[in-house]
Amino acid sequence: MNKPHIVVLGAGYGGIMTIVKLQKLLGPNEATITLVNNNDYHYQTSLLHENAAGTVHHDRTRISIKEVVDLSKIRFILDKVVKIKPKLKKVKLKNGDLSYDLLVVALGSESAASDIPGMTEHSLTIDNLNNARGIREQIEYNFAMYHNDRVKNQARLNVVVAGEGLTGIELTGELANRIPELCREYDVDEDLVRVINIEEASSVMPSIDSQFADYAINSLAARGVEFVTDAMLKECRTDSVVYEKDGKTEMISACTIVWIARVRANSIVEASGFKTEEGKVPVQKDLRTPSFEDIFVLGDCSLTTDQETGLTLASTAKLAVQQASTVACNIKKLIRGDFSLDIFYFKPTKMAISLGANDGIGLTRSNRKLFGFRALIMRRLMDNYYLFLLGGFRLLMQKGRFNIFH
Amino acid sequence: MNKPHIVVLGAGYGGIMTIVKLQKLLGPNEATITLVNNNDYHYQTSLLHENAAGTVHHDRTRISIKEVVDLSKIRFILDKVVKIKPKLKKVKLKNGDLSYDLLVVALGSESAASDIPGMTEHSLTIDNLNNARGIREQIEYNFAMYHNDRVKNQARLNVVVAGEGLTGIELTGELANRIPELCREYDVDEDLVRVINIEEASSVMPSIDSQFADYAINSLAARGVEFVTDAMLKECRTDSVVYEKDGKTEMISACTIVWIARVRANSIVEASGFKTEEGKVPVQKDLRTPSFEDIFVLGDCSLTTDQETGLTLASTAKLAVQQASTVACNIKKLIRGDFSLDIFYFKPTKMAISLGANDGIGLTRSNRKLFGFRALIMRRLMDNYYLFLLGGFRLLMQKGRFNIFH
Repeated sequence: MNKPHIVVLGAGYGGIMTIVKLQKLLGPNEATITLVNNNDYHYQTSLLHENAAGTVHHDRTRISIKEVVDLSKIRFILDKVVKIKPKLKKVKLKNGDLSYDLLVVALGSESAASDIPGMTEHSLTIDNLNNARGIREQIEYNFAMYHNDRVKNQARLNVVVAGEGLTGIELTGELANRIPELCREYDVDEDLVRVINIEEASSVMPSIDSQFADYAINSLAARGVEFVTDAMLKECRTDSVVYEKDGKTEMISACTIVWIARVRANSIVEASGFKTEEGKVPVQKDLRTPSFEDIFVLGDCSLTTDQETGLTLASTAKLAVQQASTVACNIKKLIRGDFSLDIFYFKPTKMAISLGANDGIGLTRSNRKLFGFRALIMRRLMDNYYLFLLGGFRLLMQKGRFNIFH
Repeated sequence: MNKPHIVVLGAGYGGIMTIVKLQKLLGPNEATITLVNNNDYHYQTSLLHENAAGTVHHDRTRISIKEVVDLSKIRFILDKVVKIKPKLKKVKLKNGDLSYDLLVVALGSESAASDIPGMTEHSLTIDNLNNARGIREQIEYNFAMYHNDRVKNQARLNVVVAGEGLTGIELTGELANRIPELCREYDVDEDLVRVINIEEASSVMPSIDSQFADYAINSLAARGVEFVTDAMLKECRTDSVVYEKDGKTEMISACTIVWIARVRANSIVEASGFKTEEGKVPVQKDLRTPSFEDIFVLGDCSLTTDQETGLTLASTAKLAVQQASTVACNIKKLIRGDFSLDIFYFKPTKMAISLGANDGIGLTRSNRKLFGFRALIMRRLMDNYYLFLLGGFRLLMQKGRFNIFH
C-alpha cells in the first residue's frame, strides 16, 4: 500500500509551522511529506525591517530549513513553484513536477505592482530577505560613496520611506537608531542625514489608534525623522521622489527610496485557477478550499473569516501560525480516516511594534496599551515565543533576542 | 620672545611620524607645533587593500590622531591644505591661513588622472580610506542586489582589477579570500563569481622578480583569479571594461572596476611654485628644499637620492618613516641654533606582500626570498613594528595583527 503524499508549498510562517507540527503528529510510516521552498531557509518577515536598516544581521533572522525540519522524516525540495494544477493533483515546479494526495498552499504574499511612474524601477521594496539586505547595502553604499564624489551629493544621505503600512514606521524607527552608527562608520556629519517618511493619508499610521500614532511620531521625530503627510506620490526617479502636496509639486532627492508596497497574496494562487477574492482563496472553516477537498490554504494566501465575529481576519504572521496547527491536525485526521475536521478559531493576540532598539508601542491581550520599553519587551517576548514554537528551546537559545539593553 | 612655529602638513606616514618624534624631542617651551590634516585620523595606506576587499574593517586600519598625538603639546587643525606660499611663509587652508617659521610638507600622493576614456568616471581607485571602503561597499552592494534583479546580471558578480602596481595583486589576494565569505552572506553560487586581473604588460607584476610573480600567480589562480596580460585598456563603462588583446577588441562586464592608478605626488606641491621633477620636490641631503631653507619635504612629495648609490629612492612608506626621523632631528637642531644638519641615509628594508590571509611573498634584509605563510608573518611583523614606532606598546596591542592563524 502506498503512503499518502503530503506536499507543503512555502516555508514562511504558515508552511514551516505546518511541517514542524506534521513531523511531530505523524509516524514515519503514515505519510510521505514534502516541503517545497525557493530558499533553503525560513525567515521572520516581521523582522525584515531590522535587516533592512542593518541593525540586526539577516543571519540572525533567517533559520536554515535543516535547523527545524527533520530531513530524515521530511523531503525538502529547493525549487520555485510555478503553478498548481488542482484537477491533476500536480504542482509544476521550475525544475520538475510533483504529484500530491494532500496539498498545503502557504505561498505567502508579494508586493503589488505600483502604478506610480518609476516606482517599480527605482525604489526598493521590503518583501523578503534579498531585498531587505538590498536596502541595507543601498544605504551603506551611498554613505560610503558620499566622500568619494567630487561634488557632494546630498541625495546619498537622504532616505525616503514611502507608502502605507506599519513596516515603514518600524523601518524608520530602526533607521533612526542606525544612522548615528553609519555616520561614525563613514565619517558623515549626522546633521546632514535626512530620513523622511512620506504618507499619502492625512495622518501618519492612519490604520492605528491615534494615541499610538502620536507616541510613535514623537519618538521618531525626536530622533530626527521627518514626516510628510497628505502627499500624493507622482513619480519615483533614480535619486528623487516627486509628490504633490497642497496643490504644489515638491521633490525630495534621495538615493535610497523604500516603497512599502501594498501586499497581495502570491499571484501563483490566482494563476492556478482557484476561486479568489482580491487574490486570496476564501477557505472553509476547516481551512480547505471549497472546490478541492485535498487542498488546504493558509496564511496570506487565504481569506479567512473569524468564526465569532464573521469578519475577515487580517493577514498576519499570527494568523498563519495559528492556522498551521489546525491544518496539521486536520491532515492527521484525514490520513487516519477521521473526516470530522477541526474548525479554525482565531485567538486574538497581543500586538507590538518596535520603534528602534529601545522603544515601541503595544497592545496586550486585555487591550491594555503599552508604550516605550515595556512594549519593546513584549515584542521581543513574542518573537522569542515564536522561535520556541518553531524549534524548541535550542532554536530559542540560538536565535532568541535577549540583549534588550543596548 | 616668540616661540618658533613649526607646521606639519599631512598626517600620513611621514607627517605623523615627524609629529610623534617632535613631541618627544622638543620641550613644551621650545616651539609651537601645528599639525594640519584633512582627516582626524591617520591610516596605513599599505593596508587599504584589506579594507577595500572587506577582509579587515577600516576601523582596524585607521588611527585617530588623538590616539598618537599629544594634543596638550601639539595643535591639530582639521582642514584641507589649498596652497603653500613659501615666499610669504604662509599656508593657505580651506578655512583660513597659517604662518610658519619651519614647514614640513608631507602631503603624500594622489592618483594620476587616467587618459583611458571613462576610467575616471566609472572606476574606483584605492588611494585613501574613503575610496577603499567605497570599493568594499560597491562589491557588497552588487552581491546583495544580484538576487533582486528580475534578470540576473553577471556583471554584478564580476570584479575587475586593472592597472599597474602591486596594490592590485594584494587586493586580488584579499578578494580571493573574501569572495567565499560574500557568497555565503548573499547566497551566491561561488562558481559564478569572477575576479579578473587585467595587466597591460606582457606579464603579471612586471616590476617584481619572476619567481615571486610566478608564485603569486599560481597562488591566486588556484583560488580562482583570472589573469589577462598584454591587454591595452580602451574604455571603461559603468558596467564593463573594453580592452584590446592580440589585435582583437574584448569586453568584460563588471559592476566593480578597480583602477590601480599611477600615483603622483600631491599636486598642491607643484601648484605652490616649488621646483619639481615629475611633480616631486628634489630635496637636499638634509631633506630641505634647495630654494627654501625653512621647508622640509618628505615622503611621496620628495624626490630623494640615495647617498650611497646615487639613485632615486622609490616612494614607499618606509622611506617616509625613515625621513621623518631625520626631519625631526634637523628641526630640533635648527631650533637650538645648531646648523650642522643630519644627512639622510636610507636603510634598505625588508619587503613583503600579502596574498590574502594565509599567503605572501617577501624578501628579507639579507635578500633571502620567503614564500607563503613565512612571508605573511614577516609582513605582519613589519606592520606591527610600525604601530609600535608610532604609538608604542599601547597602540601595538590595540591595532596590532596577531590573529594570523585564520
